[in-house]
Amino acid sequence: MPHIELAEGVPGILGLMEFRPETAKPLSELAEVLLRSDNSLSRGERELIAAYVSNLNSCHFCESSHSAFAAAQMEGSEALVDAVKLDPAGAEISPKLRALLAIASKVQQGGLHVTDDDVAAARAEGATDVEIHDTVLIAAAFCMYNRYVDGLATLAPAEREAYRGMAHHIVEQGYVGALEQPDA
Amino acid sequence: MPHIELAEGVPGILGLMEFRPETAKPLSELAEVLLRSDNSLSRGERELIAAYVSNLNSCHFCESSHSAFAAAQMEGSEALVDAVKLDPAGAEISPKLRALLAIASKVQQGGLHVTDDDVAAARAEGATDVEIHDTVLIAAAFCMYNRYVDGLATLAPAEREAYRGMAHHIVEQGYVGALEQPDA
Repeated sequence: MPHIELAEGVPGILGLMEFRPETAKPLSELAEVLLRSDNSLSRGERELIAAYVSNLNSCHFCESSHSAFAAAQMEGSEALVDAVKLDPAGAEISPKLRALLAIASKVQQGGLHVTDDDVAAARAEGATDVEIHDTVLIAAAFCMYNRYVDGLATLAPAEREAYRGMAHHIVEQGYVGALEQPDA
Repeated sequence: MPHIELAEGVPGILGLMEFRPETAKPLSELAEVLLRSDNSLSRGERELIAAYVSNLNSCHFCESSHSAFAAAQMEGSEALVDAVKLDPAGAEISPKLRALLAIASKVQQGGLHVTDDDVAAARAEGATDVEIHDTVLIAAAFCMYNRYVDGLATLAPAEREAYRGMAHHIVEQGYVGALEQPDA
C-alpha cells in the first residue's frame, strides 16, 4: 500500500503525478527532453539506459516500464533489453552504448565513482560531450525517479503485459502528452 | 577538471545548465517548485533537507550551496545547519522536521528503505501527505542533482564565502529567475 493517499489502482509515478501536478510538470518535461527530444542517441538507446539504471536500483515499476519503452523503440526488442540488464558487456549493442552504460552504472553508485578512464573509454568509441552529459543526467534522473516511486511505495503491476500497454501510449504521445491526456 | 568542456570557472550545476539549456529548464523548475513555492514546510526547512541529503551523498557543491540557502532562510543560521548535518537527532529542530529528515536519509539509501514505521513516525509529529511526498521527492531529486554535478566532475569552490554570495542571489531571484539572469 502506498505511504500516502493516492488515486486507487493508478500505478507507479502516474499516481504521484496525479497527486501533485505542480511537480509532475517539470518531471515530465525532464523525461521528455532526456528520452525523446532530438539526439544522436536514439530513443531506444536512451530508454535502455533508463531501464538499466532502474534495474540496478531494483525499481520494478521503472525497470518494467522503461524496458517496455526501450523494446518498443529499438531493434532486438525485449530479448535484447533483457540481455543488456543481465550483462551489458556480453549484449549485442554498439561499443559506444556499452561504454555509456558503464558510465551510467558508476553514476548509479554515486557521482564521484565516474573516473577519467570511464569517460575516455566512451570517447574512444566516439561518444560526444552531449552524449556523455545526457548519459550522466539520464542515470542521475533515474536515481531520482526510482527513489520517488519506491520511497512512496507505489503500486507496480507484476506482469509485463501491463507495461506493454503503457509503452504504446508513451511512444505515441510522449511523456508530456501522456500527462496532459492520461486517459487518452 | 570537468569530464566535458564547460565554460571556464562556472561552478557546479551552473556550468552544466549553461552547457545544456534544454535540460536546465525543467531542472530549475523542479527546484523552484520543491524548494520555493507555497508550502507548509518553510523554504529554510526544505533547503535543509536538500543540504542534508547532499551531505550524505558527499556532494560538496550541492551541500555547500544548499546549506548557505538554508541558513539564509531560517533562524539559527549556519550553526544550526551544521548541527543538523552532523546529527539531526540532537539538533534544535522541530520533531516533525526531524522525522522528515529520517525519511530523507532512507530515500538517500534507496526508495525501498523507507518503511511504514518511518512514515507513521512523521505522521505522529503532524506531517501531512504533501509534506511526506515533498520530503521524499526533495531527497530523491538531490540524489539526482548530486550525481549530475559530481558525475561530470564540475568545479566546486572550497570556501563557504563563495556560496554565501550564491545564497543572496537565489533568495532574491529563485532558481528559475537565476537561470534567466545568470549575471544579474
